[in-house]
Amino acid sequence: MELLILGCNSATPTSHRNPSAQILNISGHTFLIDCGEGTQFQMRKMHVNFMKIEAIFISHMHGDHMFGLIGLISTMSLLNRSTPLTIFGHPKLEEMLRPQIAFFCDNIPFKISFVGLRYDKPQVLQEVKHVNVRSIPLRHRVDTCGFVFREQVREPNIRREAICRYGLTIADIVSIKNGRPYYDYNGEEVAREELVREAPAPLSYAYISDTQYLPNVASEIEGVSLLFHEATFMSELSELAMKTMHSTARQAALIAKAAKVRKLIIGHFSSRYVETDGLEAEAQEIFPDTTAVYDGFKIVF
Amino acid sequence: MELLILGCNSATPTSHRNPSAQILNISGHTFLIDCGEGTQFQMRKMHVNFMKIEAIFISHMHGDHMFGLIGLISTMSLLNRSTPLTIFGHPKLEEMLRPQIAFFCDNIPFKISFVGLRYDKPQVLQEVKHVNVRSIPLRHRVDTCGFVFREQVREPNIRREAICRYGLTIADIVSIKNGRPYYDYNGEEVAREELVREAPAPLSYAYISDTQYLPNVASEIEGVSLLFHEATFMSELSELAMKTMHSTARQAALIAKAAKVRKLIIGHFSSRYVETDGLEAEAQEIFPDTTAVYDGFKIVF
Repeated sequence: MELLILGCNSATPTSHRNPSAQILNISGHTFLIDCGEGTQFQMRKMHVNFMKIEAIFISHMHGDHMFGLIGLISTMSLLNRSTPLTIFGHPKLEEMLRPQIAFFCDNIPFKISFVGLRYDKPQVLQEVKHVNVRSIPLRHRVDTCGFVFREQVREPNIRREAICRYGLTIADIVSIKNGRPYYDYNGEEVAREELVREAPAPLSYAYISDTQYLPNVASEIEGVSLLFHEATFMSELSELAMKTMHSTARQAALIAKAAKVRKLIIGHFSSRYVETDGLEAEAQEIFPDTTAVYDGFKIVF
Repeated sequence: MELLILGCNSATPTSHRNPSAQILNISGHTFLIDCGEGTQFQMRKMHVNFMKIEAIFISHMHGDHMFGLIGLISTMSLLNRSTPLTIFGHPKLEEMLRPQIAFFCDNIPFKISFVGLRYDKPQVLQEVKHVNVRSIPLRHRVDTCGFVFREQVREPNIRREAICRYGLTIADIVSIKNGRPYYDYNGEEVAREELVREAPAPLSYAYISDTQYLPNVASEIEGVSLLFHEATFMSELSELAMKTMHSTARQAALIAKAAKVRKLIIGHFSSRYVETDGLEAEAQEIFPDTTAVYDGFKIVF
């Protein structure tokens, strides 16, 4: 699992950070999460292959999370993409984008499916195969969803030496993979670790942006390997955070702690913070394994 | 007069050049010409004050010339602009942008007027005061206009020593400024250069992008101080230029030569050209005072 930050600034533009966009590689899939203006240029600079993106997840209908969509789709069309693309977002997103796509992308050579999110309760996004993706309603000035991506539990690998030693058949292998015991010629149960190498525990990623402090969200993202939580402000501006329905670095860390996540990264910083050390330090007081991200930040699990 | 290039690439994005956008300062006015995706970030990086832009001129409805508009307008709204903004472009531009502005810019605090261009003949854009701006139909795959900006002829300055020596009255000064002769007490005509310092010749700028080679355009831009002409390709790709209705560097120079302009700058380069020396050299063979621009290029007249 690998996450690459294309942009991590909040609404107003700065010369040092781009608006929200991230690339998640998980279980062999490539997803784009949010798509602020200039996302396609960030991808070019960071050598991300546009064509590999299978699905795009748009958290909410604010420009800094979606103004890059039409440009990206338009370029995919110019470059003759043929693979279908699925876009998850507010039902109004399709209504807004379809006329633009029709106008700007002559004879678009790939199919785009829009999937409308719901904002009253979490939902499993069935359209994504081989990865469990859930949308989680957040609380912001407009309808907003976070997303949790969980790898599926993987089958254990049968040890080659066990296959030779016990002359395992296909049926034996399927049975062992399914967790059933195996008996040798003497009727003795063979120790499981002699038969299989267990697959690594499945990894998971949660994206929580934009939202006011929402303690209930912790139960939805419990134990994820990596959590991105927005931290627009430092605590000294917690009133402004409340008013604009954003979170502070401290609140992001409280969520990470309550959810017992493995690692926390914070972003969606207000333009007023040129340096983000203060935000990082504030979060680390509550949740030590916190990193304040930057454009180009990459983490591999 | 000052021109700043914010972006000078053609359609598909590169990591080294942004799509079309330019800032023109002329006669105390600030205009934005075209507005590709990411224009607002380029402005931030180059310290251009968003708020000073009085009017935006959109040459045609291709994404690389206009996808940055909604983001820019949205940021102007977030920053509480109050000055009205005029946008010149295809009549469909208003139809496309109004619903987006209504959706994304809550209670937008400034007025936006759209002025539809015509594509059958040149037209004086009356809405711009104190500068003569004409739109010139070009020939591209969709309706496209170039723009010519001409400073108005400025009044000569009366020399202070002449005012004292001849005791010039306000009426005398107005008469001299209007070009009429002036006679001293002896009835002798005073040499004009003794009375006035002539104002510098008015400057002018022509923006010609995107278009196939269009020799007729030369008469419309005759004698301009500075010409920007698109040069998407080098001559070796002139068939591709014809097919995509773009110009070569050589063709841009032929226009500059025929129009007897003072200086030529070329841009709107195909992404295939990482270095633009070849394009510049090709144009210089025909029109020596040519410069291939780059993002951040600035020229002052």
